[in-house]
Amino acid sequence: MARLVLKFGGTSVADLDRIRNVARHVKREVDAGHEVAVVVSAMAGETNKLVELCRQAAPMHDAREYDAVVASGEQVTSGLLSIVLQEMGVNARSWQGWQIALHTDGAHGAARIAEIDGERLIERLQQGQVAVVAGFQGLAPDNRISTLGRGGSDTSAVAIAAAIRADRCDIYTDVDGVYTTDPRIVHSARRLNRVAFEEMLEMASLGAKVLQVRSVEMAMVHGVRTFVRSSFDDPDAPQTGEGNLPPGTLICDEDEIVEQQVVTGIAFSKDEAQISIRDVADKPGVAHAVFGPLADAHINVDMIVQNISPDGNKTDITFTVPESDYDRAMKVIENRREEIGFGAIEGARNVVKVSVIGIGMRSHAGIAAQCFRGLAEKGINIRAITTSEIKISVLIDSAYSELAVRTLHSLYGLDG
Amino acid sequence: MARLVLKFGGTSVADLDRIRNVARHVKREVDAGHEVAVVVSAMAGETNKLVELCRQAAPMHDAREYDAVVASGEQVTSGLLSIVLQEMGVNARSWQGWQIALHTDGAHGAARIAEIDGERLIERLQQGQVAVVAGFQGLAPDNRISTLGRGGSDTSAVAIAAAIRADRCDIYTDVDGVYTTDPRIVHSARRLNRVAFEEMLEMASLGAKVLQVRSVEMAMVHGVRTFVRSSFDDPDAPQTGEGNLPPGTLICDEDEIVEQQVVTGIAFSKDEAQISIRDVADKPGVAHAVFGPLADAHINVDMIVQNISPDGNKTDITFTVPESDYDRAMKVIENRREEIGFGAIEGARNVVKVSVIGIGMRSHAGIAAQCFRGLAEKGINIRAITTSEIKISVLIDSAYSELAVRTLHSLYGLDG
Repeated sequence: MARLVLKFGGTSVADLDRIRNVARHVKREVDAGHEVAVVVSAMAGETNKLVELCRQAAPMHDAREYDAVVASGEQVTSGLLSIVLQEMGVNARSWQGWQIALHTDGAHGAARIAEIDGERLIERLQQGQVAVVAGFQGLAPDNRISTLGRGGSDTSAVAIAAAIRADRCDIYTDVDGVYTTDPRIVHSARRLNRVAFEEMLEMASLGAKVLQVRSVEMAMVHGVRTFVRSSFDDPDAPQTGEGNLPPGTLICDEDEIVEQQVVTGIAFSKDEAQISIRDVADKPGVAHAVFGPLADAHINVDMIVQNISPDGNKTDITFTVPESDYDRAMKVIENRREEIGFGAIEGARNVVKVSVIGIGMRSHAGIAAQCFRGLAEKGINIRAITTSEIKISVLIDSAYSELAVRTLHSLYGLDG
Repeated sequence: MARLVLKFGGTSVADLDRIRNVARHVKREVDAGHEVAVVVSAMAGETNKLVELCRQAAPMHDAREYDAVVASGEQVTSGLLSIVLQEMGVNARSWQGWQIALHTDGAHGAARIAEIDGERLIERLQQGQVAVVAGFQGLAPDNRISTLGRGGSDTSAVAIAAAIRADRCDIYTDVDGVYTTDPRIVHSARRLNRVAFEEMLEMASLGAKVLQVRSVEMAMVHGVRTFVRSSFDDPDAPQTGEGNLPPGTLICDEDEIVEQQVVTGIAFSKDEAQISIRDVADKPGVAHAVFGPLADAHINVDMIVQNISPDGNKTDITFTVPESDYDRAMKVIENRREEIGFGAIEGARNVVKVSVIGIGMRSHAGIAAQCFRGLAEKGINIRAITTSEIKISVLIDSAYSELAVRTLHSLYGLDG
């Protein structure tokens, strides 16, 4: 007997037929003797429809009212799934965010979860009742509905799993797990059976769009074992894969991963643009003079590279922004030419960030050198490099992105 | 300065253009210095869509889940109207049933209002904030969402008006008031400026579909002055009619009605069927033997007529049921032939109940006689008669319904 959270996204509950399919997944786990909480998104398209209604009502609108409107989508799904489960003979009831209560901070429209009272849910689970929780929503300190921002249902699911001390949080999605890289680019990409939290965090934030970054963060902090699997699986098929699980990827503590690969995956992030500021004074406060105004303009800066200045006077700063913010970012910097004090500003639109990720590289030397040599052999120029303990990122021209990903995927022995 | 509740139904908030029109009505009252609470229904069609989703999920379903699903419609409208009001510079916020809280009993799907805490709303109103309340919904004792049954938003509005001690509850609807009879039948029908609660109760339950019966009951019990007006009025037109009100009908205490007509209106109710049970034993318990099984079968019995038996042994009982329940009702009675003990059972489908209503008839003799003579002069046969203090109802063949209504309308001097 285990305690499980199952999370189903919008496409998995798009209509009543799919909701019935979801219910069969739930029933299978109940029949296996597990305690089950389900977290559901709004039916596919509903959230967009509601967001659009708010936008049409007023382009700039009160986030508290937006939350009341948009949270209704998950409310509907939670009720419908409960009805379908009951029809199948499964004891189930819906829970809205304010009923649990799932307390959030007051940042309406993009709230962060503050505290969840799991005891009421646990009590019902122990009585054999399935809890069908409306994802994406909570209760703000003003006693009004809050939402967690787009994709927040993943975060709801992991947070609830932490609150009810679940053994596992199963994320049913439209792919059957996390791959060594995007299978559409590299046909030999393999599904990973297990990925460490830290690795998944890098993969998620680097463009592998399987899980929301926030949900992975939360899973890591609370140690919630999170299993990514396909919602299109036959609900009645026996669960007989690794650890009695069907095909999928378990995101877990690195201790649970027996045979740790040095490199786990290759991620890449398109639609980036690069900006380089030349001959900036190498003195305190310059980075702030550059990035403060960008933050004020709500431009999300990703990679930042600043090298040691050769003469101790002047240096170059390179950073990347979303391609769609490129023009705006250039203008922000141009307008601050005097405050920042720089020689020239250069930019490039068509760049891509490719990252090599692996928790094993902490204990293996030479991984970065291998990467650079591999790319050089293919004649791929590296524009900038950043690294973390478990990741090497290179910025290259986007024309070479597929070649680079394939080369690195093969180089680190990831081909299936 | 007055404290007002404004209620808008589904067609009045069917899309964002109409919601903007509603907001202009609200703004007009705010600009006039009034404290305003608004009660809204779901956008036209939404409730039906949600009800249908529940039905498709399972024909018989948990009313608590139905409530969670269906109440989402009003939640959306309350948020959207608040956004539009804010965009117009009006301080406004949405309130869900559970936030107020509007407490109901536990009869999910058709709950009755138990208690409303008006103080929180009053506090905000006094601070100059418009309260936009999701109609039709409340909070059941199990801390879950309840709904009041179809058309419950009228009841929400009147109940909230009572709870916040409002000076008036304005029901914006698709007609511009209550008429002496249906203007589609009698072209000379006049709009009534004022109607007493008791009269409106008879009119509402007799087929004048302007207001839900329950809302009128509640208005009467709590003395909530209720004003029926058109939501298609120009929101910016000056409010210059009777008592500085636009065209409409004020439903109020009879003391407020200076020139009381003897007869206020002629109501009629089609789609009725008549059942007569002949030669029933005239002894205690017979009525119960007839109507108990009908109630158990959820058949709504309307008119009941039983005369004094000529010989003290046998009597006849006549009653009406909705035409759609006729076959079922006949079968229920047939099946109880032995318990009830009757001679024959007769029925008629095509009958209509026509009612003459007027609080003034309490102090005027001869009103009934006038009615019977008028119908006789047109050769209309009366199948059955019932009366109350302020109402005379006759059951006639439906072929004569329009003739009867026109005749009585003219007879009592109601033609405009």
